Amino acid sequence: MSRDSKMQIVVIGGDAAGMSFASKVKREKPDWNVVVFERGEHVSYAACGIPYFVSREVHSLKDLQVITADQFREKRGVDVRMGWEAIEIDRDTKIVIARDVSTGEEVRQGYDNLMIGTGANAVKPPVDGIDLEGVFTVRNLSDAKRIHEFIDEHTPQAGVIIGGGYIGLEMAEALTQREIDLHLIEMLPQVLNPMDEPITEKVMKELDRHNVDVRLDSKVSAIHGKNGKVTSISIEGAPEPIPAGIVILGSGVRPNTQLAEQAGLTIGEFGGIRVDAHQRTNDPDIYAGGDCVEQHHIVTGKPTYIPLGPAANKHGRVAAVNVLGGEAEFPGVVGTAVMKVFGLTVSRTGLTTYQAKKGGFDFIEQTIQSRERAGYYPGGRKLTLHLVGEKKTGKLLGAQIAGGETAAKRIDPYAVALHNHMKLPDIAMLDLSYAPPYSPVLDPVGVAAQVAANKLT
Amino acid sequence: MSRDSKMQIVVIGGDAAGMSFASKVKREKPDWNVVVFERGEHVSYAACGIPYFVSREVHSLKDLQVITADQFREKRGVDVRMGWEAIEIDRDTKIVIARDVSTGEEVRQGYDNLMIGTGANAVKPPVDGIDLEGVFTVRNLSDAKRIHEFIDEHTPQAGVIIGGGYIGLEMAEALTQREIDLHLIEMLPQVLNPMDEPITEKVMKELDRHNVDVRLDSKVSAIHGKNGKVTSISIEGAPEPIPAGIVILGSGVRPNTQLAEQAGLTIGEFGGIRVDAHQRTNDPDIYAGGDCVEQHHIVTGKPTYIPLGPAANKHGRVAAVNVLGGEAEFPGVVGTAVMKVFGLTVSRTGLTTYQAKKGGFDFIEQTIQSRERAGYYPGGRKLTLHLVGEKKTGKLLGAQIAGGETAAKRIDPYAVALHNHMKLPDIAMLDLSYAPPYSPVLDPVGVAAQVAANKLT
Repeated sequence: MSRDSKMQIVVIGGDAAGMSFASKVKREKPDWNVVVFERGEHVSYAACGIPYFVSREVHSLKDLQVITADQFREKRGVDVRMGWEAIEIDRDTKIVIARDVSTGEEVRQGYDNLMIGTGANAVKPPVDGIDLEGVFTVRNLSDAKRIHEFIDEHTPQAGVIIGGGYIGLEMAEALTQREIDLHLIEMLPQVLNPMDEPITEKVMKELDRHNVDVRLDSKVSAIHGKNGKVTSISIEGAPEPIPAGIVILGSGVRPNTQLAEQAGLTIGEFGGIRVDAHQRTNDPDIYAGGDCVEQHHIVTGKPTYIPLGPAANKHGRVAAVNVLGGEAEFPGVVGTAVMKVFGLTVSRTGLTTYQAKKGGFDFIEQTIQSRERAGYYPGGRKLTLHLVGEKKTGKLLGAQIAGGETAAKRIDPYAVALHNHMKLPDIAMLDLSYAPPYSPVLDPVGVAAQVAANKLT
Repeated sequence: MSRDSKMQIVVIGGDAAGMSFASKVKREKPDWNVVVFERGEHVSYAACGIPYFVSREVHSLKDLQVITADQFREKRGVDVRMGWEAIEIDRDTKIVIARDVSTGEEVRQGYDNLMIGTGANAVKPPVDGIDLEGVFTVRNLSDAKRIHEFIDEHTPQAGVIIGGGYIGLEMAEALTQREIDLHLIEMLPQVLNPMDEPITEKVMKELDRHNVDVRLDSKVSAIHGKNGKVTSISIEGAPEPIPAGIVILGSGVRPNTQLAEQAGLTIGEFGGIRVDAHQRTNDPDIYAGGDCVEQHHIVTGKPTYIPLGPAANKHGRVAAVNVLGGEAEFPGVVGTAVMKVFGLTVSRTGLTTYQAKKGGFDFIEQTIQSRERAGYYPGGRKLTLHLVGEKKTGKLLGAQIAGGETAAKRIDPYAVALHNHMKLPDIAMLDLSYAPPYSPVLDPVGVAAQVAANKLT
């Protein structure tokens, strides 16, 4: 079928990947028919903003909605069907079967090209009491609304965060701002696994400074309630339960691939849908992107599962260009991320020491302390930089930074270096910006690379 | 001569390039003899900090001295001779002749390897009155001290800055903080030449907001004084003089190469000493670095003259490694710089539109506006990004950013991209850090590249 005839495009899932795909297709081909099935109540929302809505820094849930379903329909001509869940993909007849979540009504929608952006689901630990009122996952705006309203209504004095990853720590900050005394329960011997100790040490100090009681090596054995509402949590081996008027699950996410799997699409070793650089699945007419897919890791050269918003947006765009008959490739990711833990900024890119070890790399690691600005210039905070490099080749494998706000954007030069497989001595020679209000004369990004390079020989 | 025997090393000029060279050599080879001739009063000082000392944000001149001559002598074993000016290099006999600036005494110092780090001199426009009291260049700590004391003593009400480059604008901010009403005189039709209009427009607004009266296309014709002290300035074609109790010259710098030239070392087309990637001059025993040398521009592949501190430090280190018998190369620069203009941060890397035009590139340019953070997250300011790309290859040629503080470190990913000759569509796909307090979901660095890439086809 010619690309110029009117095509029928179906999208399953109305968040970042799906909607960036739909928008791009419809913008380029206004006469194509683009149907989006979204089972939830919102499309294209800023899930990462949820902690800041709960903390009241963001005042309205509307602020987290980039574009509403109505706007997609009216301004972009995308046929968004809210509250419709796709329940089957028939690849032989090229039909998606979707069901109205509230009425149970079913429709059959044919497609020329299908885009799957079904996202990920929060992992719920299999313990008693997980479904009690006051126990929340943090995935979508409906979760955000429920948490916000629950705190307003019940004003819990104590809370428990299960899981010390990004979501857990961001929610710890949010709940502390709502004046809830917090315990954070982490199964592993550290928070922010697999980040390295010179960085997580700073995070632990920051949590302590804000009176978050962190229990490492701790596993929740049961969640207790009264009248259907959560009241406390038991930890394996601990003598007595921890009081908890609210519980937040930050136990990670799992790609939502049931539909793709049933349709016989290839699933990768991390449980995500496998796609090529064009975001194409093993069915040439079906694309996928966002939190439901595995990605190529540029440093390891292997698949990885890192579900984050920026990539999802790019997946949608790349898939769209290819569906439109163009040529676009998603190069993969290097594992860049940043988060705010109270007053501390923590960033990373590439592999941590733990990951380098696991990946079988022969590596060196180096930690340096620096200031964000020229030593004599007022203000500015400390930075801790931790670098991992490959011994044999001298290549950077990864970087982590903790400290002041500039830790966020100071990780990006390392990310670009990883995209280009740069060596540590070459990173030390990079022409980075300098003026006293912004940097020491040699930026810590380069200095850390120089000091690490010295370890190579 | 074997590198392991005791070598005689001479350094001319005790600032960034010279002292980083001397320190590295002495650290690796404690028994080598390293002599530094410095004609001024200070070594290894932070010239870029001068505006912040004048503004009183930095309280003591000592804070701008990274290491003192005494510390170099005592802790690092470097034989620093303060107030000694090298007046001749005899390459045949491998001898430097130096003169004590105060006594006129001369010494002859033999060298196995010589490092030239003679820096640059401020350009003084050839107008009457340029040597009046109250007319200052801004190059070294002695200048800083004089300016500071002059303001304390005479509390000038009005001042004139000649030149709208980095130094001129930073000093405009400093003098405004000392409550001096300012005029800024710029010969060219814009400030911060050769930066582009979408950026300089923001700078002009910021200067206006702080009541700095900028006169473009204006040339100083004379500086007037009374009792040897400056009182006003005349501009060509202007009806009457501008009152000025203080005048700051920000008319640029010129590489200080007299000594090298007399010794027959090759001088490049921009007037700087020509060196290879090893920082070696055309005499294999003589190295040079810092503000007195030309550098390789990685984007144009041609020589350039961009005198900045970070490169000077690297030059010294690279030269030292080579003198020590190792192998190090300075890759060149991409023209990265950042400055603070009152509350505005302005950064650049690579070529501006003006430079791309002049360099004969067939280029596209693109300006975008963005926010520093997620739109819904409180705080954060606007950014203006201006990109220049090569039409034929799609490669990034340069980037400029103006706006909030993150404009400083957001230029660095572009700098790394330039080092790696990256194309705009690939920059759009970079895995850059995201969290709502630090960035929109797609960082403006990538978005600008995507929008610019759209112009390529």
